[in-house]
Amino acid sequence: MSTLFDRIGLLYTGDPDREEIRDAALVVEDGRVAWVGPSGDDPGADERVDVDGRCVIPGFVDSHAHLVFAGDRTAEFTARMSGERYTAGGIRTTVAATRAAGDAFLAARTAALVAEMLAQGTTTVEIKSGYGLTVADERRSLEIARGFTEETTYLGAHVVPPDAPSADDYVRTVTGEMLAACAPHAKWVDVFCDRGAFDGDQSREILTAGIKAGLLPRVHANQLGHGPGVSVAAELGAASADHCTHLTDADVTALSSAGVVATLLPGAEFSTRSPYPEARRLLDAGVTVALATDCNPGSSFTSSMPFCMALAVREMGMTPLEAIRAATRGGAQALRRTDIGVLRRGARGDLVILEAPSYVHLAYRPGVPLVVQVWKEGRRVA
Amino acid sequence: MSTLFDRIGLLYTGDPDREEIRDAALVVEDGRVAWVGPSGDDPGADERVDVDGRCVIPGFVDSHAHLVFAGDRTAEFTARMSGERYTAGGIRTTVAATRAAGDAFLAARTAALVAEMLAQGTTTVEIKSGYGLTVADERRSLEIARGFTEETTYLGAHVVPPDAPSADDYVRTVTGEMLAACAPHAKWVDVFCDRGAFDGDQSREILTAGIKAGLLPRVHANQLGHGPGVSVAAELGAASADHCTHLTDADVTALSSAGVVATLLPGAEFSTRSPYPEARRLLDAGVTVALATDCNPGSSFTSSMPFCMALAVREMGMTPLEAIRAATRGGAQALRRTDIGVLRRGARGDLVILEAPSYVHLAYRPGVPLVVQVWKEGRRVA
Ligand SMILES: [Zn+2]
Ligand SMILES: [Zn+2]
Repeated sequence: MSTLFDRIGLLYTGDPDREEIRDAALVVEDGRVAWVGPSGDDPGADERVDVDGRCVIPGFVDSHAHLVFAGDRTAEFTARMSGERYTAGGIRTTVAATRAAGDAFLAARTAALVAEMLAQGTTTVEIKSGYGLTVADERRSLEIARGFTEETTYLGAHVVPPDAPSADDYVRTVTGEMLAACAPHAKWVDVFCDRGAFDGDQSREILTAGIKAGLLPRVHANQLGHGPGVSVAAELGAASADHCTHLTDADVTALSSAGVVATLLPGAEFSTRSPYPEARRLLDAGVTVALATDCNPGSSFTSSMPFCMALAVREMGMTPLEAIRAATRGGAQALRRTDIGVLRRGARGDLVILEAPSYVHLAYRPGVPLVVQVWKEGRRVA
Repeated sequence: MSTLFDRIGLLYTGDPDREEIRDAALVVEDGRVAWVGPSGDDPGADERVDVDGRCVIPGFVDSHAHLVFAGDRTAEFTARMSGERYTAGGIRTTVAATRAAGDAFLAARTAALVAEMLAQGTTTVEIKSGYGLTVADERRSLEIARGFTEETTYLGAHVVPPDAPSADDYVRTVTGEMLAACAPHAKWVDVFCDRGAFDGDQSREILTAGIKAGLLPRVHANQLGHGPGVSVAAELGAASADHCTHLTDADVTALSSAGVVATLLPGAEFSTRSPYPEARRLLDAGVTVALATDCNPGSSFTSSMPFCMALAVREMGMTPLEAIRAATRGGAQALRRTDIGVLRRGARGDLVILEAPSYVHLAYRPGVPLVVQVWKEGRRVA
């Protein structure tokens, strides 16, 4: 089965060799990109989609999301917007609701969020555990997540649950019994290394244990203040350090030298009314930047990659080109993937048609749902 | 023909007497709200819509939009985001493209934007002229606008066109021949009273001429700096002063005393990276606040009322309740309408079903398209 996408006004490929092509066409065959060329050629295909001058981009890669949860934190949001400060404590509310929820309910809630993301052009999403915080509940969260993505992340170290005898005791569980139960269902291990959560030594211990169990490391780093998250990420060769809101010069150098992607999550700063990360400082230092939603019910309940791009341009001084790159190829790099976030021969046929002549409109037209068609592995899914 | 909307989890009515009702139901009959009551009652209706616990709100009233134009200002947007300042001058680019466009093309572009708004829950939109700036092109713009809304606004005084012999000469045209040609197609007269556009005396002259021709006044006021816009609006009994970004204490008092609605357009501040208006100062002084998109290709190309609400909460300190009120009833007041922006007996059956348990989610879930059904005068339109 092959599909020709013809008369593409602007194709953003995400391929550094030819990142943007005007008046392009593209063929997806058996789920993979088989051909990219000029519009008007006839490469032969079973089916033809007339893109009619619109812009085509790779499906968004949302490399940071917390989608397995129950409950709602509307009241907390309203209170915070009236002037209260956000602390990691609010996570516990969601933990209680998630533990109390049935499997089918949790899976249905996750499915609804994944579908919502897909409709907005996100064809790959990373999903973390972290609202169970017991052996059984973390494993269950990852089993559910696995039903929706290959990119599952064990985040038993999201916060120390209130019922843990002590932080040290909880770290022993996270690196022991819980890890053993979760590792078979996860690709990644993550830790919330920040004030109110886990310190540098604890984070190192948790990530190292995860690596020994065959998981790849990534880190929630430097969101709420300066700290050791980024340096631990660099030291252990993490794929990504996420948030990166408060960085020293040494942190920026560490990210750059170690080739750690800085995953920026401006939805969190938007919804907690916090200062935004300094994307320009990172980009100017040669750090690879990814954009992701951080979708979660506490600090960033957006599932919209276009919204995050608009914030990146408005609030973090990224150009629209840097923003689309970070939302596609950047996210793929944060997941160590070369088959997504890019439209070149051999890559997955994951693509989005925009109701716009350019990806710039994702920032130029903030809040407007511009995604009109979503294709995943060559099949239309939205 | 009557429709029962049953099992509404939360009904935001916009009616000050009972603004929010949990577990509600509502009947629309012959295009008007016929009954509002508790869920579970059977008021009798031809058709039943199961809202299944979701939130219902009045259709948004977008009381400030510039939708009749041709051309695109993507490059200007990208340049501005890289550090250039916004000035009113960019409007001239759109004027040239609009004049050059054919009637059918202009009407189709307008229709596409109106449809885009409707899909996002906007059931009433005000549409201004102002990109023609010749007698024929302004009249044509209003004729096109009239095809989509009763709320048409003559904005010949958007900017002095470069081909006008002088500003004074252009004001004579705007208050003379152009007004005569446009008044039959407009409800409102508007003027861009700001630096680079029209001063206080010119604005007063233009509005007064419009009033004499049977139009009602509204004003683009105090967007780019302090100035006489708000005081002229108050003096002439304008329904609304729009933007209100730079206000003196006397301006705030004038709005409050004269009962002029302050229509805030945070999409413009977002897309021009400008300081936001001080909504709290206005609300605390008893001024009625409306939110609108200012949808236009230069300074605010959003058509999303939910996005404006999210900005109002994040950036202007409005509560989610104040934001929904401003986006519905506030907009209606800015258009001197009592039959829209509210769901009470006798009002228009313009309503929106959200994929959320509360209107709070419009700010809590920024960028996410939560509007799942839109009904206008009792008919489903999106
Ligand atoms: Zn996170
Ligand atoms: Zn305007």
